[in-house]
Amino acid sequence: MPHDLHDFFYPRTVALIGATDKPSKPGTAILENLSHFNGAVYPVNPKHATLLGHRCYPSIQAVPDQVDLAIIALPAPLVEQELDAVRDKGIRRIILISSGFAEAGADGVLMQKRIADKAMRYGIRVIGPNALGVYNTDNGLDSFFVSRERVSRPSQGRLSIISQSGAITVILMEALARDGMGIAKAVNYGNRLDVDDADCLDYLAEDPLTGAVAMYMESVGDGRKFLAAAKRLASVKPLVVWKAGKRELGAAAVSSHTATLAGNYGLYQAAFRQAGAFEAYGFDHMIDAAKAVAIMDYPCVGKRLLIVTNGGGMAVAAADQAEQEGFTMPRVPDAVREKLGLAFPPFFVKNNPIDLTGSGRNEDYYTALAEALPHYDAAVVIMLMGATTVTEAATDMIARACHEAKRPVTCCILQGLGYTRDAMASLLKLGIPVYPSPERAVRALAALRSVTHNKNCEQNE
Amino acid sequence: MPHDLHDFFYPRTVALIGATDKPSKPGTAILENLSHFNGAVYPVNPKHATLLGHRCYPSIQAVPDQVDLAIIALPAPLVEQELDAVRDKGIRRIILISSGFAEAGADGVLMQKRIADKAMRYGIRVIGPNALGVYNTDNGLDSFFVSRERVSRPSQGRLSIISQSGAITVILMEALARDGMGIAKAVNYGNRLDVDDADCLDYLAEDPLTGAVAMYMESVGDGRKFLAAAKRLASVKPLVVWKAGKRELGAAAVSSHTATLAGNYGLYQAAFRQAGAFEAYGFDHMIDAAKAVAIMDYPCVGKRLLIVTNGGGMAVAAADQAEQEGFTMPRVPDAVREKLGLAFPPFFVKNNPIDLTGSGRNEDYYTALAEALPHYDAAVVIMLMGATTVTEAATDMIARACHEAKRPVTCCILQGLGYTRDAMASLLKLGIPVYPSPERAVRALAALRSVTHNKNCEQNE
Repeated sequence: MPHDLHDFFYPRTVALIGATDKPSKPGTAILENLSHFNGAVYPVNPKHATLLGHRCYPSIQAVPDQVDLAIIALPAPLVEQELDAVRDKGIRRIILISSGFAEAGADGVLMQKRIADKAMRYGIRVIGPNALGVYNTDNGLDSFFVSRERVSRPSQGRLSIISQSGAITVILMEALARDGMGIAKAVNYGNRLDVDDADCLDYLAEDPLTGAVAMYMESVGDGRKFLAAAKRLASVKPLVVWKAGKRELGAAAVSSHTATLAGNYGLYQAAFRQAGAFEAYGFDHMIDAAKAVAIMDYPCVGKRLLIVTNGGGMAVAAADQAEQEGFTMPRVPDAVREKLGLAFPPFFVKNNPIDLTGSGRNEDYYTALAEALPHYDAAVVIMLMGATTVTEAATDMIARACHEAKRPVTCCILQGLGYTRDAMASLLKLGIPVYPSPERAVRALAALRSVTHNKNCEQNE
Repeated sequence: MPHDLHDFFYPRTVALIGATDKPSKPGTAILENLSHFNGAVYPVNPKHATLLGHRCYPSIQAVPDQVDLAIIALPAPLVEQELDAVRDKGIRRIILISSGFAEAGADGVLMQKRIADKAMRYGIRVIGPNALGVYNTDNGLDSFFVSRERVSRPSQGRLSIISQSGAITVILMEALARDGMGIAKAVNYGNRLDVDDADCLDYLAEDPLTGAVAMYMESVGDGRKFLAAAKRLASVKPLVVWKAGKRELGAAAVSSHTATLAGNYGLYQAAFRQAGAFEAYGFDHMIDAAKAVAIMDYPCVGKRLLIVTNGGGMAVAAADQAEQEGFTMPRVPDAVREKLGLAFPPFFVKNNPIDLTGSGRNEDYYTALAEALPHYDAAVVIMLMGATTVTEAATDMIARACHEAKRPVTCCILQGLGYTRDAMASLLKLGIPVYPSPERAVRALAALRSVTHNKNCEQNE
């Protein structure tokens, strides 16, 4: 039996109630974005006969097809009544885009409660209100009311996103698209009138296209339900959670933002630990960790870290971070040092970090990794693209060495003014995530190491 | 009397000993880069009659002019003897690019010691060896052996860079150029045979074009001398210091990298505090803090922080970070709330954070800041450019409000796929630094706040 949330992500047909063509209206952006959906789209608005090339229907009843999912972008006061029409049409799934409910004060709270009661009576499941809804790269479904010109959409990938905040959802999408990272699905559940954090976790735990989940939350719908769902998901795929609204100032901001209680941060941290989720401490940390755990799939990552660089200072920074993250950096074994001594000029440093200096060539990265990496659990590779001896072709060699040794590798390449972007994209395609500073490359490996500890593997440390 | 280091940055004439045209040789890149220098350039190499359109001289003696600065890019073993020719020519300043000295083992240590002794006897000051040397945007002097195609050069600005690591120097330059940040001067002193960290601090303390200094160090030349110089500089302009090689793993990496002792990190921290320098904990932190203190000049920044956003989640993240950095977030005063209530639709949140929601327009940012900012010490402004109601023109309004209130403001704009880059560059030009995450925008303001505390100002907190 398909999961209860299945039709939110895989409807055969979608109606958009509140479709329009007025610029800057949500109903316009959503209709545009639905042009990418592999299914039938039925705009509903009594004032239009056609919209963006679609035939437009005066009411939901007038749509000449079964409707699996209704996206409602009406002003808040009109939603309650529309629910009857939706029920009469036999629709069982609604994404409620409209804002002006619980987040907007006492009247909104009451209105939201009435809609919640009605939907439950009618057997209708609701995502929202005050939500972007769903983006699914598998079938092009996109209920987000932000244009693709303004917010880039990531291509297909294995990471899925669950977010309580619409803003965080779109900014994550933009950041991932910029980095060339694909995603599977994204869902912003907003005010959580019905479908909540735990429901989304449950659905994505079962989704075969989701390899890892990144989650932003300010508060929890139901603590026990969340913990159980997080545990289930984290037992089968990596879960990265960022809890915002941690202490006094953040919690106050949460209560203005989502009109929910941020709760005791210590309890959240305990729940994340118990669930086996990885806690990210902020925006960059969330993206860094999510990229690492979504792209790299290793059964068990130990703590012995190798660093290979062509710039000594960056390796020192990486070593500082490695210590902070609980890695060790054993010396390169003597037998390997001897081999490297034959292959490298004398001024290359054959300790750990291995420093190829500004003269290191593409093939030297391969040699260093091929010889040394099998003696370690993971590596951070730092490439300063300012050196003329390093080219984009180094990326293939680094990936080859990493795959031969079956060890996870993160790369540090500064996001520069063009030259370095190609190298970053190539590495990502080869399964190696790239970070703009040595500290972040190390921190991402630490996240990967942390999530692999949920797998019952023997630690070879 | 000009500072002893003046001629390193402002020579009238420069000779490049070891100039060549072989691709990927340091002498080639440096000669190319010297084409931007506003002074006479004399390449020296007995094998060439001309190089890159310059007449080339067979020896330094053959140069028909007084030479203020010699850049030496010869193989290490040839340097010692060349020193005699340099002395005979009356040259008193050398940038020694060549590597293969103290960083390359025992023989190199001895060779470096002999050169140091000779240079001192001859009265020649030396930057290097194993160094990039000097980049000065005021006269185009550029002794770096990395091409401009590979590493972008920042334009003119008020930030200067001192770095023990060449790699960190170029990657800082690339990152600043990418962000549209200008610099005044950069110096990488490498093995510190003569000119050291403290000398560079002393020179830049007096340089009128340097408004702030960002410094990367792994070890110190002379602890007392450094502390005195850092104190002098920090008393007249902001100093941001990143000490890498903090604990066991980092210190081991330092000893491989610069063959120096990383020393006790606690002592460094105490020295930074005593000097009034701001300690950055890593690469991103260094850049973030340096941008803030170089662009924004305020006598005294208190701890009452205002956050204005068009996306609630990002403001929660900023509030979390604000708490961590010791800011307070007082509520918006009632009188201001009333005014905002008249100007804004009811669903805008008039607490602190002020949340303009996805409907916030450019002028709403101005209104929020114009009314509220005078009641605070600083603000973080978060702009999600995914909202169609916000355009690049918002930047002018934000800057106007910030200048009218005479309060420092940092912005958070995600670095996206194009649309946001223009807005970032405009803000920077208007004196408002931009950061890619809310946490980093808050952290940068905290750095500014910290350096203003060196100025004997009354804290209005």
